[in-house]
Amino acid sequence: MVEKRKPIPVEEAVRKVIENDVYPKTEKVSIEEAYGRFLAEDLVASHDVPSFDRSPYDGFAIRSIDTKEANSDQPVRFEVVGEIGAGSVFTGVVEPFQVVRIMTGAQIPAGCDAVVMLELTKEISEKEILIKRMFKKGDNISYQGEDTQKGSILVNKGTQINPGIVALLATFGYHEVTVTKKPIIGVIATGSELLNIDEPLAPGKIRNSNAYMIMAQIERAGGQAEYFGKLDDDFDTCLSATKEALAQVDMLITTGGVSVGDYDYVPAILHELGATVFFNKVAMRPGSVTTVAKYDNKMIYGLSGNPSACYVGFELFVRPMLRRTLYNQFPHLQKVKATLGVDFPKPNPFMRFVRARLDYVETQLVASPSGVDKSGIVSSLGGADCLLLLPGGTRGYEKGMLVDVLLLEDHQGSEWPWNNIVPSYR
Amino acid sequence: MVEKRKPIPVEEAVRKVIENDVYPKTEKVSIEEAYGRFLAEDLVASHDVPSFDRSPYDGFAIRSIDTKEANSDQPVRFEVVGEIGAGSVFTGVVEPFQVVRIMTGAQIPAGCDAVVMLELTKEISEKEILIKRMFKKGDNISYQGEDTQKGSILVNKGTQINPGIVALLATFGYHEVTVTKKPIIGVIATGSELLNIDEPLAPGKIRNSNAYMIMAQIERAGGQAEYFGKLDDDFDTCLSATKEALAQVDMLITTGGVSVGDYDYVPAILHELGATVFFNKVAMRPGSVTTVAKYDNKMIYGLSGNPSACYVGFELFVRPMLRRTLYNQFPHLQKVKATLGVDFPKPNPFMRFVRARLDYVETQLVASPSGVDKSGIVSSLGGADCLLLLPGGTRGYEKGMLVDVLLLEDHQGSEWPWNNIVPSYR
Repeated sequence: MVEKRKPIPVEEAVRKVIENDVYPKTEKVSIEEAYGRFLAEDLVASHDVPSFDRSPYDGFAIRSIDTKEANSDQPVRFEVVGEIGAGSVFTGVVEPFQVVRIMTGAQIPAGCDAVVMLELTKEISEKEILIKRMFKKGDNISYQGEDTQKGSILVNKGTQINPGIVALLATFGYHEVTVTKKPIIGVIATGSELLNIDEPLAPGKIRNSNAYMIMAQIERAGGQAEYFGKLDDDFDTCLSATKEALAQVDMLITTGGVSVGDYDYVPAILHELGATVFFNKVAMRPGSVTTVAKYDNKMIYGLSGNPSACYVGFELFVRPMLRRTLYNQFPHLQKVKATLGVDFPKPNPFMRFVRARLDYVETQLVASPSGVDKSGIVSSLGGADCLLLLPGGTRGYEKGMLVDVLLLEDHQGSEWPWNNIVPSYR
Repeated sequence: MVEKRKPIPVEEAVRKVIENDVYPKTEKVSIEEAYGRFLAEDLVASHDVPSFDRSPYDGFAIRSIDTKEANSDQPVRFEVVGEIGAGSVFTGVVEPFQVVRIMTGAQIPAGCDAVVMLELTKEISEKEILIKRMFKKGDNISYQGEDTQKGSILVNKGTQINPGIVALLATFGYHEVTVTKKPIIGVIATGSELLNIDEPLAPGKIRNSNAYMIMAQIERAGGQAEYFGKLDDDFDTCLSATKEALAQVDMLITTGGVSVGDYDYVPAILHELGATVFFNKVAMRPGSVTTVAKYDNKMIYGLSGNPSACYVGFELFVRPMLRRTLYNQFPHLQKVKATLGVDFPKPNPFMRFVRARLDYVETQLVASPSGVDKSGIVSSLGGADCLLLLPGGTRGYEKGMLVDVLLLEDHQGSEWPWNNIVPSYR
């Protein structure tokens, strides 16, 4: 009656998922829409920065040789022969002992080779100033290409566009930006116990929260969610909805119906479709009944109907494939080390993922559960910004132990977090 | 000729800004649009969770008293009188030595007070099972209200909605969510040297990157940017554009023209408007010429035209006011302690903000500059996820010293980061 499933280790499960190919697509968006998207091409400097020799200060452009003899006892007198506002250019010729008034960012006039800051000069008339010290060639000049040379790669493809990258895109004239298309991830919730959000509670029923949670997780990871509704536990309905959804999406997530209960149709649907099932049980808590399969080159994720298991299953198995479809090179959640803020005395044979909050206490990161960690409990999800990672074994964990945590809101990501995870050393 | 300005400390400048009132507005959005927005009301549990006594496992609902004598030598035989799928309810009466097959999440039938997991029973016919041990009242029952009681505040107003909070909103039937309206922040770029992004480079000119960068910063912080274009350095044009913009926005940011150069019209415009100027010089690098003023109950930020100064000025002075307008209680960038990854040998009288990248090296956070830190240099902005905070003084900083950093991509925020900032202890 009860199907026996063999759980595989988390690392192996993630590897079986990411061994599959992804199929990134690209599109052009205007720079105003680029924030938060992922670069589909390397960002290359289209010109030197600065693109001309320029003044970093308000002051006077000079021929440094003219100041050779200048000192505070014998200041040298200069004639002001022009003025260059930022954006304008001085086209005249600067003769010996002539200077040009220059604004921050303006181009150094031909013949000049240094800038004297305004504060270091003395105005004696509208057309005459004194300089009291010597300046060398190159003093206070930002040379062409000093910051960045034309052709250099400034940001790698697959990087998420932050405000600094927007500034770079603007600087180099990318008014249109080639980004990856957001992969379309279908979401189906199953379970006759589920109510729509706007329905009143009824005996034995709960509202469908997983689908909305997953849609937000998809958005956070950089994808586009497509909701196919909430289905009753009926095989034919679920099968045809799955087929219909698969035709329209890049990947499909179902939540619920994945277990071995009498109303869990996901296994039968995958069988009926002829999908390749990579695994249907993982040695993890929560989420041990997670199923991942592939059909028609599309990943199908059968996540648990339990909110916490569903949440963790998404972050572990869906997110890396989603991020890879965005060309991201660090598709997994970033792993860092933190001090455990509480005891976990009870050992567990499976690796546990505990929703937690990370705090910076002086020089240390401290991770503590964000709520009661029963897997059916939803209220701890709201405060979680990381997952505590407690490898399975015969020992529990003590407050103060060093453990690994996976960051949920981080932007750096990780290439492969599944090595050298700290076990209990109690 | 050169106006003398007195720089004020960063802490004092931030305080002068946030002493001003903010004017949050609220709106309702559908739950599908709620991710990333800020709650305008506390999220209150509209019912108990669970809302009924339920089974956390697939199994049989029993009357625990019937198992009193059960052991492996003398298993007790039970009659299966019904089956409850999740979402359905058993309406019959459970008599002695009767059980009901129950699915995960389903409501416990009246009269039953424990659940036996499927694996611990033995099926002897379709209608009969054996139980081999004793169970106590309450075994494997999730009681009504066990996780959350009706009326409890689960998430405070002003919190940014993450996927876990979306799950909570769905659970409690918030198909519409009351969130704060995104404040509209106007952006004006000034400078005759500025080209539009799609214009080819020309002698003496640079492309307008600050406006686009600021718009992305506004989006990251949770606001809505409104771009009023790029203006030449002309007093009348700038004045009328400023007036027009102010009429349409909640706050206004200008970039450029804020210094004391001949083409810097921001001071004159603020004077002409009759705006209250809080400061026009801050003891910080970059960004010392930042000006903040108020007119008609709207904040006006005169940020530097220098990209780094503009970036830092936004995060220090605009972001906290923007976040407060979203009811956020931790409106400043979060401050954490990190080990300095490089030397900063040159002392500076002003507090420095260095764009940096934070890495987690075992148990320590290490912050290193994300590029060459010249204030005119844009390329280091792309890789920055934090700002190194180096208080001014007569000493430089050495690699390995503990310093404060402000996190740029963080979601927790800080109530007031400006106390006890670690100075150089070289």
